[in-house]
Amino acid sequence: MEVKRVPTGISGLDELIGGGFVEGDSILISGGPGTGKTIFAMQYIYKGAELYGEKGIFVTIEERPKKLRRRMREAFGWDIEKYEEEGMIAILDVSAARLGIPTNERYVEFRPFNMDSLLETLRRLVRELNASRVAIDSLSAIGLQYEDEFTIRREILRLASVLGELGVTSVMTTEVPFSDAETRLSKFEVEEFVTDGIIALSLQERRGTQERSLIIRKMRSSEHSMKRHRFDITKEGIVVYKEQMV
Amino acid sequence: MEVKRVPTGISGLDELIGGGFVEGDSILISGGPGTGKTIFAMQYIYKGAELYGEKGIFVTIEERPKKLRRRMREAFGWDIEKYEEEGMIAILDVSAARLGIPTNERYVEFRPFNMDSLLETLRRLVRELNASRVAIDSLSAIGLQYEDEFTIRREILRLASVLGELGVTSVMTTEVPFSDAETRLSKFEVEEFVTDGIIALSLQERRGTQERSLIIRKMRSSEHSMKRHRFDITKEGIVVYKEQMV
Amino acid sequence: MEVKRVPTGISGLDELIGGGFVEGDSILISGGPGTGKTIFAMQYIYKGAELYGEKGIFVTIEERPKKLRRRMREAFGWDIEKYEEEGMIAILDVSAARLGIPTNERYVEFRPFNMDSLLETLRRLVRELNASRVAIDSLSAIGLQYEDEFTIRREILRLASVLGELGVTSVMTTEVPFSDAETRLSKFEVEEFVTDGIIALSLQERRGTQERSLIIRKMRSSEHSMKRHRFDITKEGIVVYKEQMV
Amino acid sequence: MEVKRVPTGISGLDELIGGGFVEGDSILISGGPGTGKTIFAMQYIYKGAELYGEKGIFVTIEERPKKLRRRMREAFGWDIEKYEEEGMIAILDVSAARLGIPTNERYVEFRPFNMDSLLETLRRLVRELNASRVAIDSLSAIGLQYEDEFTIRREILRLASVLGELGVTSVMTTEVPFSDAETRLSKFEVEEFVTDGIIALSLQERRGTQERSLIIRKMRSSEHSMKRHRFDITKEGIVVYKEQMV
Amino acid sequence: MEVKRVPTGISGLDELIGGGFVEGDSILISGGPGTGKTIFAMQYIYKGAELYGEKGIFVTIEERPKKLRRRMREAFGWDIEKYEEEGMIAILDVSAARLGIPTNERYVEFRPFNMDSLLETLRRLVRELNASRVAIDSLSAIGLQYEDEFTIRREILRLASVLGELGVTSVMTTEVPFSDAETRLSKFEVEEFVTDGIIALSLQERRGTQERSLIIRKMRSSEHSMKRHRFDITKEGIVVYKEQMV
Amino acid sequence: MEVKRVPTGISGLDELIGGGFVEGDSILISGGPGTGKTIFAMQYIYKGAELYGEKGIFVTIEERPKKLRRRMREAFGWDIEKYEEEGMIAILDVSAARLGIPTNERYVEFRPFNMDSLLETLRRLVRELNASRVAIDSLSAIGLQYEDEFTIRREILRLASVLGELGVTSVMTTEVPFSDAETRLSKFEVEEFVTDGIIALSLQERRGTQERSLIIRKMRSSEHSMKRHRFDITKEGIVVYKEQMV
Repeated sequence: MEVKRVPTGISGLDELIGGGFVEGDSILISGGPGTGKTIFAMQYIYKGAELYGEKGIFVTIEERPKKLRRRMREAFGWDIEKYEEEGMIAILDVSAARLGIPTNERYVEFRPFNMDSLLETLRRLVRELNASRVAIDSLSAIGLQYEDEFTIRREILRLASVLGELGVTSVMTTEVPFSDAETRLSKFEVEEFVTDGIIALSLQERRGTQERSLIIRKMRSSEHSMKRHRFDITKEGIVVYKEQMV
Repeated sequence: MEVKRVPTGISGLDELIGGGFVEGDSILISGGPGTGKTIFAMQYIYKGAELYGEKGIFVTIEERPKKLRRRMREAFGWDIEKYEEEGMIAILDVSAARLGIPTNERYVEFRPFNMDSLLETLRRLVRELNASRVAIDSLSAIGLQYEDEFTIRREILRLASVLGELGVTSVMTTEVPFSDAETRLSKFEVEEFVTDGIIALSLQERRGTQERSLIIRKMRSSEHSMKRHRFDITKEGIVVYKEQMV
Repeated sequence: MEVKRVPTGISGLDELIGGGFVEGDSILISGGPGTGKTIFAMQYIYKGAELYGEKGIFVTIEERPKKLRRRMREAFGWDIEKYEEEGMIAILDVSAARLGIPTNERYVEFRPFNMDSLLETLRRLVRELNASRVAIDSLSAIGLQYEDEFTIRREILRLASVLGELGVTSVMTTEVPFSDAETRLSKFEVEEFVTDGIIALSLQERRGTQERSLIIRKMRSSEHSMKRHRFDITKEGIVVYKEQMV
Repeated sequence: MEVKRVPTGISGLDELIGGGFVEGDSILISGGPGTGKTIFAMQYIYKGAELYGEKGIFVTIEERPKKLRRRMREAFGWDIEKYEEEGMIAILDVSAARLGIPTNERYVEFRPFNMDSLLETLRRLVRELNASRVAIDSLSAIGLQYEDEFTIRREILRLASVLGELGVTSVMTTEVPFSDAETRLSKFEVEEFVTDGIIALSLQERRGTQERSLIIRKMRSSEHSMKRHRFDITKEGIVVYKEQMV
Repeated sequence: MEVKRVPTGISGLDELIGGGFVEGDSILISGGPGTGKTIFAMQYIYKGAELYGEKGIFVTIEERPKKLRRRMREAFGWDIEKYEEEGMIAILDVSAARLGIPTNERYVEFRPFNMDSLLETLRRLVRELNASRVAIDSLSAIGLQYEDEFTIRREILRLASVLGELGVTSVMTTEVPFSDAETRLSKFEVEEFVTDGIIALSLQERRGTQERSLIIRKMRSSEHSMKRHRFDITKEGIVVYKEQMV
Repeated sequence: MEVKRVPTGISGLDELIGGGFVEGDSILISGGPGTGKTIFAMQYIYKGAELYGEKGIFVTIEERPKKLRRRMREAFGWDIEKYEEEGMIAILDVSAARLGIPTNERYVEFRPFNMDSLLETLRRLVRELNASRVAIDSLSAIGLQYEDEFTIRREILRLASVLGELGVTSVMTTEVPFSDAETRLSKFEVEEFVTDGIIALSLQERRGTQERSLIIRKMRSSEHSMKRHRFDITKEGIVVYKEQMV
């Protein structure tokens, strides 16, 4: 039986997960501070447009779009605005409402944060742009809006389900505080169960040096690499190495 | 004295537990994210129909039935719909009500979630189909509906008791967050005591590689293997190996 | 000074504790899931009747009496019903009320659970049967009925005191969740202090194999073995070995 | 400057703490279940009467006086009743009120538990008997009556202060749940600071055998042994050994 | 693409982070008690004025400005008042309002603490002084004003955003209690995610001696040293060494 | 720049901290039960009077002044009353109010405990006596009066600030429960940040023997020893050794 695969745009990753993400799946990108979660999410959207001509939506819950564009340009030379002008990429700004700060972004979610409203906006945007990729940065910031695990779980599940039914393939970041970064996979621990895949990014100190690695903890419907792989954040973005890290 | 055994449909497992589950028992399938709990539960139902001609009900609390069928077909080539059409398998959709999303599934539990209603539906379905197997995926999602350990415990106990008195043999999955996956057996820790058996699925990193294993922590009325066994998720589903894993 | 001893009916145990339990004492049987607590409690009652002609009462808080009888018969060939008919053993069913399920047991505690009522029933039953042994399975399920440590402690203390004053010798099980099974002795941690003895049952994985052992943590008025002892759950029930386990 | 010392009656202990407790001090006896705290407390009272002709009061919060007398007689041959009749020892029964059970003890505290009332009773009893020793078994049971650390601390402090001003030297037991027995000194962790000395009793498993030891964690105004000492519970009560345990 | 860098004024640090902080970024200075966080923050402001002619604002939430000036002068000979008089440095006193103590500081935030008011004052001061550097000492003291993680996160995010949009580059200290100092990066764990960089200061005991080191955990848009570096607090302030500490 | 130093009166300590405490600073003395915190605090006051002719105030929150004087006299031969009569030392009794017990101390704080009142009394006493040293024993007992970290922090900060502005140099003790004594520095963990220095007293068991040591975790404006130093509680009080403890 043939599964349709979506190339990730992360150099070296596709071959570790059977050729790419399964179309319609939601993948969790998990990691502590400074591990590269936002870069991963943006690279998925940016390279989708640049390399595969696929349209994508980047939902930023806390970082201002302006700052996001600037640091991606400065660090990797990615010209996000060009693709926004071509209608290939849309950045949906949820941060302005959250911070109560004015914005002149084109795509904006207004306060107060509301999952129904976000789902409605995403439905509309996906159709308008004919997008096939969505990135949510971050689930942690969304989860904080809710009071109990029961609701967080249902709302994240709804988000992932609606995206799946719209036919888009999504990546969602989740933060792990530094203190738990090597022993936990997600902030609320429910994200682990309601998403279809988990890629854990790691930045670990060993004998006085920090090393980056990732490991694929879950990838439904796919045989995936069972190894821990080193990766780097280079001038071209994230590059994953095939060899196992010991 | 003769005990009636129900073959599990999990390749290699029956001989580790004295020939199968004891008829009427409730078995807990425990594990972290990506360990294969849902696959185990569906394989129990699917192989029950395919290999032993036994009818089964799969209760899905959170995953949409459509997605569940698709990924089982894609990963293992299991044609669940065929058995649904033949009346051998029924998927009871609790997810639609939970997510507030429309469904055109045949068997649906409507919101709000209510144990009395679920028990009533299960009673009716078991009789209607003459089912002998039930899978609940997952107890964790059910438990979240309740506020205290006292109630969770009573409700899970009621569920297990009613299933036992209907004469069906059931498997129930329970999630363990990754952070506790090697030290805990269940989300609420009461499932461990109110079920008749516990099979713990494990996905553990050792020197940079993840390995799958299972261990039987409890199996009432049975002499069972005391060893940790390696298993794989193959194109044919879960296969358990007889040798001990060190 | 002469202490009156009650033989435990657990093969190999009496000689480790000076000949048996001290008459009138309450002994805590502690352990994780699958360690054999219920078997220990029933063996104390069953062998009391079979080997020593002593009458006993088994209080089951959660497991249905029918299922309990069946699995004891299947696993060990114990014909509990025979002794029930002879008036040697009584099973007091608290589970039916707890689960809101009909029962046709002879001895039943009706809802809602109430310690005064249970004490009253126990007083009456002990006199009626002239019982000298009582087993409570489990304290954990009773403790969940109360909201704070202060009350749990007082109620368990009352239970133990009343049993002691009725002249019966009792065993009470308490569950330890798997995650704490090697570091904790009881669910609420008050049972440890209000009972006269503690026998901790253990099921521990070492290099891929699970091993059963027990250790006597407390036994008031008795010199007891200070060693950890291996035990098995055999076709004849629990058998404790004299040698120390390393 | 000369300090007045009170011999403890615990064989081998006095020479480790400069000759005995300092008169008027309150000493905390800390330990997990089965470590011998109650025996220590009673031995302090009993040997005070037997060996030094000092009068003592034993306050039992939870254990019934009858059972206490019986097991001390059975285990160590201590004839407490004899000394009670001679007016050398008084057992103050707080347990009857706590459990709501009738008592025909001579010295009884009636419900509900109230520190003012207990202090009043102690003041009266100390004068009536001309007692110089008091044992409280246990602070943990008293502390449970209060809701917050602030109050527990103040009430224990009051208890110790009043005893000190009455001129009596007191020992007070405190329970440490087994799970914390090697890392904690007291149930509420305030007892450690409001008492004048701490003797920690330990029962620790090493390679399959349990060993008893004690260590003096604090002893104000005294140079005390800094070593861990082995002790036994013998037919004559607690015996402490001088050699250091490694 | 050219990124504008702000030299830190911390001897040896700039070359580890690509030449300085990225203009407009917020950098978190994290550490336990006695690690030198306040010194780092003041050195950033003081050396900015002294070496680079840049104007800076130091916001002190708890320490009195008078004491702060005195101990900086005593320890490092920094004459902060001189730069205050020249209009190069402004100390904004939030401590007086917090402690309800009179102040005759020039720049004062009045009670009660309020983020809107602080942001307003900062906006005004930055324009008035034409400041390009801001230090906040400490975020921990600010965070304590709020009740939940959701709000703390939003308010810190607002603070960082407003500072970024004013064009200033800021350092913000956060305290880690000693007990967590080697395993945590921040008091509330949200500061880690809403700031652009994290420098963790450490004071660790190894075989009886304490050693100072820092590690750069995150530095957006920058390739930074991945090593742990030793540093000292000298008569001239903080000096970071290039070699890796093992 | 010249810093004015206050000799500590603790034998061997001054040379480890650059000659003494910095005038006007507040120093935290931290430690578990039995580590010598109260002795340290009293030695600072007593030796201040005896050796340096400086007047001091000792604030006792929980221990009765009478008992305090007695045990200092018994253990170290310190004749506190003599210095009280000479007006060199004042003991401020907060314990009587706290315990609701009568007192005939000269300096008494009346109930209920109130920081404003304590600050007022301290202001008055410092002026009246012309005191330059204050000891607070203990901050832990004060902190318990408040409900949240925010308030505890503010009140301790106020206390330290007012003392600083009165020109006195203060030591404040804080308790660490035994269970955390080697991993924590203070009860509430805020004391660590609002004081100018931290000296941690330790009593640690190594291979069956307890050893005393101290380490200076923080000492603002001072270069201090970075080593762990052994100390003893001798007949003359605390003596610190210069050599490093391994």
